[in-house]
Amino acid sequence: MTRIETLKRTAFAKDNLDGLLVFNSANLTYLTGFSGASALLIPKNGESTVYVYGVNFAHAKAELSDFKVDLVKHGESLMTKIAKLASTHKIKKLAVDALDIESWQTLSKALGDEKMLAADNSAIRELREVKDEKEIELLRKAGEITSEGMRVAYETVAAGMREYEVAAEIEYAMRKLGSSGTAFETIVASGLSSAFPHGGCSDRKIGDGDLVIIDVGATYRFYRSDMTRTLVAGKPSEKQKKLYQTAKTAQEKAFDALKPNAKAKDIDAAARRIIADAGYGEHFVHNLGHGVGLEVHEPPTLSPESKDPLAVGNVVTVEPGIYLVGYGGIRIEDKVLVQRNGAEKLTNGPYT
Amino acid sequence: MTRIETLKRTAFAKDNLDGLLVFNSANLTYLTGFSGASALLIPKNGESTVYVYGVNFAHAKAELSDFKVDLVKHGESLMTKIAKLASTHKIKKLAVDALDIESWQTLSKALGDEKMLAADNSAIRELREVKDEKEIELLRKAGEITSEGMRVAYETVAAGMREYEVAAEIEYAMRKLGSSGTAFETIVASGLSSAFPHGGCSDRKIGDGDLVIIDVGATYRFYRSDMTRTLVAGKPSEKQKKLYQTAKTAQEKAFDALKPNAKAKDIDAAARRIIADAGYGEHFVHNLGHGVGLEVHEPPTLSPESKDPLAVGNVVTVEPGIYLVGYGGIRIEDKVLVQRNGAEKLTNGPYT
Repeated sequence: MTRIETLKRTAFAKDNLDGLLVFNSANLTYLTGFSGASALLIPKNGESTVYVYGVNFAHAKAELSDFKVDLVKHGESLMTKIAKLASTHKIKKLAVDALDIESWQTLSKALGDEKMLAADNSAIRELREVKDEKEIELLRKAGEITSEGMRVAYETVAAGMREYEVAAEIEYAMRKLGSSGTAFETIVASGLSSAFPHGGCSDRKIGDGDLVIIDVGATYRFYRSDMTRTLVAGKPSEKQKKLYQTAKTAQEKAFDALKPNAKAKDIDAAARRIIADAGYGEHFVHNLGHGVGLEVHEPPTLSPESKDPLAVGNVVTVEPGIYLVGYGGIRIEDKVLVQRNGAEKLTNGPYT
Repeated sequence: MTRIETLKRTAFAKDNLDGLLVFNSANLTYLTGFSGASALLIPKNGESTVYVYGVNFAHAKAELSDFKVDLVKHGESLMTKIAKLASTHKIKKLAVDALDIESWQTLSKALGDEKMLAADNSAIRELREVKDEKEIELLRKAGEITSEGMRVAYETVAAGMREYEVAAEIEYAMRKLGSSGTAFETIVASGLSSAFPHGGCSDRKIGDGDLVIIDVGATYRFYRSDMTRTLVAGKPSEKQKKLYQTAKTAQEKAFDALKPNAKAKDIDAAARRIIADAGYGEHFVHNLGHGVGLEVHEPPTLSPESKDPLAVGNVVTVEPGIYLVGYGGIRIEDKVLVQRNGAEKLTNGPYT
């Protein structure tokens, strides 16, 4: 069964919907396998239509044999075309996955009735949260490339190197292994910057004894990875060792708790408790983790207020951190697949 | 005068607006200089407030001395906090730069009156279209790094190399020069893939005599670059030479026409005419160019239907292309600054 067929089964079972309209670019890639579409109209009955602009039309025609491909020509309005086709399909209620307010207003006007539209991404989100075998294979490959990039980071980091020079070596190694670019902007945050979870990557020279947070991800055939390690440039102090051990234990506890049907907020709590018990509770200033797939941040979320249950096929990060402003920070993160009997790391290390 | 002050002058001169609400991440970076904010409320009278989540709070406090920084705690709703502050400031009409429909509906509900909101990014867009001296300096630096990356591409491309191996060398060179990552996913499209404007970058081995489109951009301190060259792996054929010369002439004509007060659609037409006259009109399947700055695609647009006039301080791409499906394609692109007496290329080459 294609993803479109699976989606139709779940989405059209409820709410008297008779059409789905997809704009989110990861959703479009997920449903069509093609990254250059601008929109996709899925009627309850009948063929789905992919909308593309001229820049991607020939490519779409070559790749999308299962879809009707409609060209949005110079001077044409995408929203007007969609409204016309919705009318042809006699669609009465159209769920839209994501749309900015200005385009929503344009589409409402073209349809002549805002009440025809519902903002609802739930059906696609539910599908995407559970990775299929093909997706797991790509996420595994992205994880392997990322782990190799991190191995290079361990070889490279040294006092006197600039942060961006370390990033250059990691990214080069991943690219040579077939990564199609980074999943997000690489973080190499040393010294006081390591106390900021998104501490960036500057031209600062790493100092002797600095904490260095390395947060990096490869992308393989659209699928992303996300992994963090914290190194010390030189010999670690007792305090650095204690911080590291606390974050590591927190990650292990969370990893052990990661099972199907567990509550995401309980996984977060398992890690948070270890850090709080060590006296650093207020310094773990972010969520424990997030889903990873076509997007680097996607559902489910591992956070104190998460309502998500976990299921076989979820791929999430587990990334406890401790950030001491004016001193430095620690984060340890792996990308993890929820399996029937527990969890499996799709990124691996350390390398020391 | 700070950017916020300039913005207040223009935005609050019209429409009885008494508040601006900013969500777009490039707009937030532009107005605050910080990349980790989630929202910014600018009241007509009174201090502006930046909203950040815990993950970025300490960093925001360290960087944003000119703003009130408000932490969105675990379990708090950003939209509820914004609605409360809007009420405190007695705001009656709030312009929102960009927001997805689901968040718009949440915010409307929190405010209790959707009519308080207007979707309007015009004031910020007008400011951002005209780059100031600081921005031009960063765009120039990003252009220099990109030009150096392209020089490496010329040294690297050869029959037998894989497309992604070429990308690896270009990106590594740019990173070592201080690029903070690519401005978009690098394109190295060889052979038949070069006939697709967004032809990707695969593990295909470049063949002898292939056309190879290289489209690449560095990012320097948030500012992006965008540059394309087309090479032949080996000795070019007469047809390849003719295609190349046509695209080159089209680019030169457009560049010569690029002056303050020129109409963007006339610049597009100048290039399009050359390509049509050579018999390839239907094969130039995209716009001539787009603005570049904090985003790789931003206003103004150089297209047949563009209503944008050009002004001193605009930075745009000029990128004519010819794409023959089943044969191959050509594109030549530079990033260009509109000056008082003409235009200046911020990317430079060729290298042969």
